[in-house]
Amino acid sequence: MGAVGVVAAAAISIAPKLAKHLRLNSFLSTFPKSTTTLPLFCRRRRLSLPFPSRSFCAATLQSSDGTATTAHSKVGEFRKKLKVVDVKGGPDQGLDKLGHCLVITGWVRTLRAQSSVTFVEINDGSCLSNMQCVMDSGAEGYDQVESGSITTGASIWVQGVVVESQGSKQKVELKVNKILLVGKSDPSFPIQKKRASREFLRTKAHLRPRTNTFGAVARVRNALAYATHKFFQENGFIWVASPIITASDCEGAGEQFCVTTLIPNSHETVDSPVDAIPKVNNGLIDWSQDFFGKPAFLTVSGQLNAETYATALSDVYTFGPTFRAENSNTSRHLAEFWMIEPELAFADLNDDMACATAYLQSVIRYVLDNCKEDMEFFNTWIEKGIIDRLSDLANREVVQITYTEAIDLLSRANKKFEFPVTWGSDLQSEHERYITEEAFGGCPVIIRDYPKDIKAFYMRLNDDGRTVAAMDMLVPKIGELIGGSQREERLDYLEARLDDLKLNKEAYWWYLDLRRYGSVPHAGFGLGFERLVQFATGMDNIRDVIPFPRTPASAEF
Amino acid sequence: MGAVGVVAAAAISIAPKLAKHLRLNSFLSTFPKSTTTLPLFCRRRRLSLPFPSRSFCAATLQSSDGTATTAHSKVGEFRKKLKVVDVKGGPDQGLDKLGHCLVITGWVRTLRAQSSVTFVEINDGSCLSNMQCVMDSGAEGYDQVESGSITTGASIWVQGVVVESQGSKQKVELKVNKILLVGKSDPSFPIQKKRASREFLRTKAHLRPRTNTFGAVARVRNALAYATHKFFQENGFIWVASPIITASDCEGAGEQFCVTTLIPNSHETVDSPVDAIPKVNNGLIDWSQDFFGKPAFLTVSGQLNAETYATALSDVYTFGPTFRAENSNTSRHLAEFWMIEPELAFADLNDDMACATAYLQSVIRYVLDNCKEDMEFFNTWIEKGIIDRLSDLANREVVQITYTEAIDLLSRANKKFEFPVTWGSDLQSEHERYITEEAFGGCPVIIRDYPKDIKAFYMRLNDDGRTVAAMDMLVPKIGELIGGSQREERLDYLEARLDDLKLNKEAYWWYLDLRRYGSVPHAGFGLGFERLVQFATGMDNIRDVIPFPRTPASAEF
Repeated sequence: MGAVGVVAAAAISIAPKLAKHLRLNSFLSTFPKSTTTLPLFCRRRRLSLPFPSRSFCAATLQSSDGTATTAHSKVGEFRKKLKVVDVKGGPDQGLDKLGHCLVITGWVRTLRAQSSVTFVEINDGSCLSNMQCVMDSGAEGYDQVESGSITTGASIWVQGVVVESQGSKQKVELKVNKILLVGKSDPSFPIQKKRASREFLRTKAHLRPRTNTFGAVARVRNALAYATHKFFQENGFIWVASPIITASDCEGAGEQFCVTTLIPNSHETVDSPVDAIPKVNNGLIDWSQDFFGKPAFLTVSGQLNAETYATALSDVYTFGPTFRAENSNTSRHLAEFWMIEPELAFADLNDDMACATAYLQSVIRYVLDNCKEDMEFFNTWIEKGIIDRLSDLANREVVQITYTEAIDLLSRANKKFEFPVTWGSDLQSEHERYITEEAFGGCPVIIRDYPKDIKAFYMRLNDDGRTVAAMDMLVPKIGELIGGSQREERLDYLEARLDDLKLNKEAYWWYLDLRRYGSVPHAGFGLGFERLVQFATGMDNIRDVIPFPRTPASAEF
Repeated sequence: MGAVGVVAAAAISIAPKLAKHLRLNSFLSTFPKSTTTLPLFCRRRRLSLPFPSRSFCAATLQSSDGTATTAHSKVGEFRKKLKVVDVKGGPDQGLDKLGHCLVITGWVRTLRAQSSVTFVEINDGSCLSNMQCVMDSGAEGYDQVESGSITTGASIWVQGVVVESQGSKQKVELKVNKILLVGKSDPSFPIQKKRASREFLRTKAHLRPRTNTFGAVARVRNALAYATHKFFQENGFIWVASPIITASDCEGAGEQFCVTTLIPNSHETVDSPVDAIPKVNNGLIDWSQDFFGKPAFLTVSGQLNAETYATALSDVYTFGPTFRAENSNTSRHLAEFWMIEPELAFADLNDDMACATAYLQSVIRYVLDNCKEDMEFFNTWIEKGIIDRLSDLANREVVQITYTEAIDLLSRANKKFEFPVTWGSDLQSEHERYITEEAFGGCPVIIRDYPKDIKAFYMRLNDDGRTVAAMDMLVPKIGELIGGSQREERLDYLEARLDDLKLNKEAYWWYLDLRRYGSVPHAGFGLGFERLVQFATGMDNIRDVIPFPRTPASAEF
């Protein structure tokens, strides 16, 4: 393959006509046939080299039973792409790869041309670190550097040998034999080296994962999600998909989004007249003509559904999106966010608190163990001391006090609060932070047994008749991270509570059935996943810990 | 703890007043203090017994820094509940537990009183198997059996010793010392022993996981989900939450659900007059007053969003709910279903096919290895031969042919099809089944390089100018299970295609940006998770493989 053809194919937007006749990816997927341009060292080691990229093979199959007479071939073996993390992510930071000849693909973060050598930093998102590539004018394809085709944001393919780095920032770098431009970057590329503000990057949500901060957030978020599944799976919990759309009448609390096909159901028909909406005689919306035959909404919680599975399979958890149509334009609220809601059968509030504590410590430990480089980044640039804060949480005992004890503690505190401290009122953020940050010196604290009047109908009434078996876990800096309760499993108590609150018992028929047929003590908790990501990364604004945040007036991308 | 008090607490709906003054769960969570009723054998082994249930401890903590003066205690250690699978799930099917004294909790499946002994089958959802409990009149709490309080559907707590079973259906059973009713089951319990139809059970979606079939489906579904995460995580993919609500104009294909707060946003306000919907002067809906300031919809696919992350982090996958507002009342369609959409950067169609094949084989192997008992159940009761079919898939090579070759093969087939076979038309189900079931004798087949006119705009144009780098994986019995493609990474080609299809390029600004700044060859595929569950369990109707199906006129629970 000649260098001219390759360059033309690579710089696809420059020479589309030519590129059309080339399989662009052939050079990406196969190790170059010719080794004549490789240094001798590289050539000798060739058989033991890590494979440079994914590959495909298309050996022709013999049809064994003679049924197929058409030419066909087998699907090739799947190969992981060799990534920067595979080279530099080990304990030796790449020193164990010295002398290996390999191919790296990714996006240019920076390019510095010095008198005799040029440094190109490539990032492929597999880790925070770039691969520093060093080349001189002898490298094949160097003309693309000289001509200015390779700029920040461009995608490139480089082949080279791992050598010890002269710089102090990394142990190894790649001495480049060959460089190819895969896709050039238009000079308007909005993510240049100078630091862009978070606000600006929210308007570029499709490009922001190419920055250090958002790449690190994505990787830590991923680790937290996987650690969540691991924890529950290893403890015998079954993942249950709670429904997203629900026409069930027992959702209740919180403003909900309506899901409908009565108004436009495609982008082509958004110019709909209000008059086109079907109505019944009195002018009300005719729900019978809607998709579900009645009003339907986006779920605010999967808990009630999870209870139906917990009372059959013992221990379950949900992990899925939930929604609030509240007009809250704050750094702590999203209209769409992911929730984790475990539900444990044959369990009480103590089991619930123990599970919440074990879960949280387990996922935090996972991130500290598996995202070291990203966590160092957050520790340096986003929240100083976050590694200590999280290590502390992962190892410390979590304490529990009752709500009544908390009120007592706050009343005796030598501190002036903005909101009054009275038994029966909900704790405010200032109260929660005083308890976890000051009274208990940075220790996570669970407050339990809240007054029934400030908690949900399904929480189990305590023997005192005025508190319920609820618990909130407070952590320093964030406040409430987890909220849970033992559920009221006694049919007559639950019905009385629905009556008290003037809720329609008929609507809860299936929820009440769980208490009619083999009711069991059960408990669970809920955790907003994005709050957890904020907690684990130190990111201030919740819009920066979810790929595409949905907030009032904003549902782009 | 006296037996009378315990029974009253357990049968909560019988004696609520008394129950109120007892911690119901105290007996569920702590090992009975008195061992006098246990057989000598049991008493001797007590220290080495598996812990009977979750427990909690509340040792008082000393405050080390003196900041907290309020009484508090630490949160206890989390304990897994001892489940039937822990006893019977090992290779010895419980024989290794002979002589162990333990506690099992769960729901009564059947109760058979013989002259001298009573058999109670308990299921806790941890596995298909029940724990067969054998008791005579000497067991503590046996009066509850005699009085008829313990019936099918009731939840119970039993303590006993693992002994060899006399029956042939299981290796071990529990010889009961003590039995407690936890929650009685009303005689109206709809899931009695006689087999209920699947249609009937759909109206009892909150109770159907208590049946063998739906319990097994839930466990296999869970295993497939976890195996999905494991496969991608172990191959360096990052899970990305693609947005559920989207006001992006480039969703396109398929009828969508509108998400709005212009019409009622809570159950309390569903009686809304059509006139209350805000309109602009010409009578059209005033979208500026909606939550997102413009029409918003439920997503039909996370692919375009996933591409933004793949072109930053290299390999990513989504696993989340997607929606179709199509009025399809079939056994293959849901309005709400879960999709898995991996996206690979620096990859072509061959890499894509290899990844799809490796993924499918990996999750199928996981289920065969980890859900043996459930798979035996499906093999016997749902689809004879399913284990062979899946083992075959997990081990066989998958073949690939082009669409053009497939058309050729179908034209020469000695078979009359209902739909004509012509180059340029989409393959019908009968064609797909002929290819995979007859032409290739049950082998999964990938068909690739489809005519561009029957495929989506984002698929990469092949060099022939009339086909695109698309691929569909067909499997016997199901037909298409996976659909994917290499994406068009060339800006000018993609823009030309949008023009051809009269799509608004402005709307795709961010999608086009990915081709403007460091474009790379990339590819991905999509898989409907419920189709996969059907494929792996043999369940006919897709409504039976998701906990709470959403279909036209149905969004209950």
